[in-house]
Amino acid sequence: MDEAAWITRYIAPLVTSAGADGLRDDVALLTAIGPTIATMDTLVEGVHFLSSDPVATVGQKLIRVNVSDIHAKGAEPLEALLSIAWPHDRSEHDFAALMSGIERDLQGFTVSLIGGDLVRHDGPLTLTLTLTGRCIGKRPVRRSGGGAGDALFLDGEIGWGGAGLSAAQSGNNPQLAARYQVPQISDRASAQIVAEQASASMDVSDGLLLDVSRLAEASGCGAQLDLERVPLAVETAEIAQILDQCTAGDDYRILLSAPSGLKIPGFTEIGKLTESPGLQLRFRAQPVNTPSTLGFEH
Amino acid sequence: MDEAAWITRYIAPLVTSAGADGLRDDVALLTAIGPTIATMDTLVEGVHFLSSDPVATVGQKLIRVNVSDIHAKGAEPLEALLSIAWPHDRSEHDFAALMSGIERDLQGFTVSLIGGDLVRHDGPLTLTLTLTGRCIGKRPVRRSGGGAGDALFLDGEIGWGGAGLSAAQSGNNPQLAARYQVPQISDRASAQIVAEQASASMDVSDGLLLDVSRLAEASGCGAQLDLERVPLAVETAEIAQILDQCTAGDDYRILLSAPSGLKIPGFTEIGKLTESPGLQLRFRAQPVNTPSTLGFEH
Repeated sequence: MDEAAWITRYIAPLVTSAGADGLRDDVALLTAIGPTIATMDTLVEGVHFLSSDPVATVGQKLIRVNVSDIHAKGAEPLEALLSIAWPHDRSEHDFAALMSGIERDLQGFTVSLIGGDLVRHDGPLTLTLTLTGRCIGKRPVRRSGGGAGDALFLDGEIGWGGAGLSAAQSGNNPQLAARYQVPQISDRASAQIVAEQASASMDVSDGLLLDVSRLAEASGCGAQLDLERVPLAVETAEIAQILDQCTAGDDYRILLSAPSGLKIPGFTEIGKLTESPGLQLRFRAQPVNTPSTLGFEH
Repeated sequence: MDEAAWITRYIAPLVTSAGADGLRDDVALLTAIGPTIATMDTLVEGVHFLSSDPVATVGQKLIRVNVSDIHAKGAEPLEALLSIAWPHDRSEHDFAALMSGIERDLQGFTVSLIGGDLVRHDGPLTLTLTLTGRCIGKRPVRRSGGGAGDALFLDGEIGWGGAGLSAAQSGNNPQLAARYQVPQISDRASAQIVAEQASASMDVSDGLLLDVSRLAEASGCGAQLDLERVPLAVETAEIAQILDQCTAGDDYRILLSAPSGLKIPGFTEIGKLTESPGLQLRFRAQPVNTPSTLGFEH
């Protein structure tokens, strides 16, 4: 079957918004209600997911990594454009499975698919999503709005992405592997908190230490992180195991700064922004050496 | 050098709009002035361009195939998100050349780069652009607005894409090859004409015969095409050579329907939409058999 037939059979049924014109055109009309943001993330086989990952989970991950960016800016996801470079040697059955994963999460996060592109090639499966979002407040919450003295808050737990990747590679624990394949991202309620309370915000995708450094740097500050306060997938008092989890990445939880003294339901205070630049790590008030690798960029 | 350094050195300098926040964030704030459309096209090495094509021209082609979609809807291009999957075995020098081609056409078509993604991998060079456009009129001109009796008009000449591809494959005629590598797309003035005069419109990207059929079908009509009226890259009265050029694709010129009897500067009337479905070809008023392959989908 050719690309046009695949689009008709598997992709067009997912399209409901009027602006998409049933994918019968080359462009989609964007919905414009208030300030609108856009993000674009690409997943490549062998880089962002394993060839052995169930392909439906790859579709879910594609939606989630993009929704995570939108939520972290204090916005709700709106409309998506999807590009798929599909390897010739993967089956139509696999394609149907990919689209079922995408459909599941489009519905779960209330995203409208409005357009995109499909090409078959002889390379790794490569997926790109452009996702728009409607700001809950008047503008997106940037990485750069924090100030020295602001507290750092984290939504959820860190380390599931790394633990899940190890499980997926070993094949021994499918339930744990699912935490890597289908990340549990921060939800719409957390996006509302970002919009209402955060001075700066981002999602933790490349490792907590790296992303704390980035938020601090973008805000013209340094940061102090109290490692014993970070909620971890695997609870431990071993510094090496804590640092492993805080540098592994693929967690897609929201990190925000807000005035100190606040209590934010569902979030944990893990440190603060500082006047002096750089990242200072502490464990039970004792200084800890900062590892040379703070995370993974991909 | 890693991805972050490449972004800083080669991509960030191209970013000027406030909404992009200097690429320091995960999302871009879209400019919203009037009805906004979006398109997304992917180019894959070996499918949409040759490995031997100068990589700067690949960057230009990426911008142009997307701008062509926007112009054909009666809109002007606005903001772009760029995803690059860059092969490990291509050099940084090549990356700089790619970005120089992209920069040249971003400027030439007044497009703001506002975000995207960069990943290195072991596959073919794969580029995806999401491009927004501002409608010149109140809404985009769709493929579906034509009616029986409307005349079909074509902007520019057909066949340069195919002739250029042959030249690029043989290596004998670099000037002709450039017509494939850097397509001469319909311009902003043609977009204005679409917005003001067209009942239906699209760009001819996959072959004139195929795209005439698509516009007619989307409009609930058939089409009659007078082959002797089609302006061709290689003028000829040989039916086989005419049909070759009309099915070769990669021309990126605007095809529109409008009330018959109009004169549209720069456009050539080449046929009409009909009540009866299907594509009827004629040459000097004599019927011509329709070839089994009308174009190339990619």
